[in-house]
Amino acid sequence: MNDHASLIDELIGSLRCLPGVGRKSAQRIAYHLLQRDRPGALKLAQSLTQAMQGIAHCRRCRNFSEAEFCVLCRNPARDRGLLCIVESPADMKAVEEAGFRGLYFVLMGHLSPLDGIGPEELGFSNLNQLLDEGETREVILATNSTVEGEATAHFISEMVRNRSLQVTRIAHGVPMGGELEYVDASTLSHALSGRRTLR
Amino acid sequence: MNDHASLIDELIGSLRCLPGVGRKSAQRIAYHLLQRDRPGALKLAQSLTQAMQGIAHCRRCRNFSEAEFCVLCRNPARDRGLLCIVESPADMKAVEEAGFRGLYFVLMGHLSPLDGIGPEELGFSNLNQLLDEGETREVILATNSTVEGEATAHFISEMVRNRSLQVTRIAHGVPMGGELEYVDASTLSHALSGRRTLR
Repeated sequence: MNDHASLIDELIGSLRCLPGVGRKSAQRIAYHLLQRDRPGALKLAQSLTQAMQGIAHCRRCRNFSEAEFCVLCRNPARDRGLLCIVESPADMKAVEEAGFRGLYFVLMGHLSPLDGIGPEELGFSNLNQLLDEGETREVILATNSTVEGEATAHFISEMVRNRSLQVTRIAHGVPMGGELEYVDASTLSHALSGRRTLR
Repeated sequence: MNDHASLIDELIGSLRCLPGVGRKSAQRIAYHLLQRDRPGALKLAQSLTQAMQGIAHCRRCRNFSEAEFCVLCRNPARDRGLLCIVESPADMKAVEEAGFRGLYFVLMGHLSPLDGIGPEELGFSNLNQLLDEGETREVILATNSTVEGEATAHFISEMVRNRSLQVTRIAHGVPMGGELEYVDASTLSHALSGRRTLR
């Protein structure tokens, strides 16, 4: 039967592809859009289609890109000697907002043998190709400070050991504005062992 | 420039039409869909377009419907003597799941003069037309037990006062499984004044 339930139920079902959206939230979103923002919903449908069909990965840094090479890799104003390795596009965005002006390599994940994610899936061959180009002076490992992130950073540092380039890891310690009293022991221990001479 | 930023940024912007989704959540959703669920996102785009273009309101009960009259209003098995008045399609769904088998009238809101929502916007003329048909024996007021919901219920009960039909309000009291100790005073006061004889 071609009744209202089918289209709405289909919409509610489709909305569940959004992360963290269950049946009840999907229903609330569907009614909200139908009642209050039909133009917005149509615009969203168009953006979704265009993005899913138009966005692939940059051949050089593996970040999302509409073109063969992304806008950062094509930008002559970036410092091509610095290569910051991050786990995800969101991490890249965070580093970018912190003012970094070198280039990136986006792993799109971290080493996780149990999930079948090894060096191949993270594009380490692309990374080696990129380093073969010889422009890179320093590799900055900016993977997350989780067990998997640390393992991934360690793996990469071993992999590039024979190349004549500097390998660094971003600093871990007390966050800006953080009060020692509320910082966890592991972070504080990192902050102590990573202490720097003031003068 | 036709670079990756434009399509992704457009998608992130469009996602903000979803209720409760800000810039950061929109970014997370966009990356999630691009990385993990492109087929789901394309399906969602299609469902959104079809729903927004195909769903209007039932001419009788004002609920969302693809056809001129919704599937409930067309169903001969429903008790046409009972008319349950609710504020929203979500409320209707809740009453339906509680096992009600009469018909509905969906206000699509509640009286709220400050927001410019008066009897006209809530379709009270449609409601009067529907009652003029003469099939209804009892009007059940199932608006929310908020100030606006109570005011709306009161307004409707006044409006239909001259018709020879029963007007009832759903009961308010202690929820099933609720412990008296944790029930608020206002609910408990309703539960007391609405007490019923056991035999």
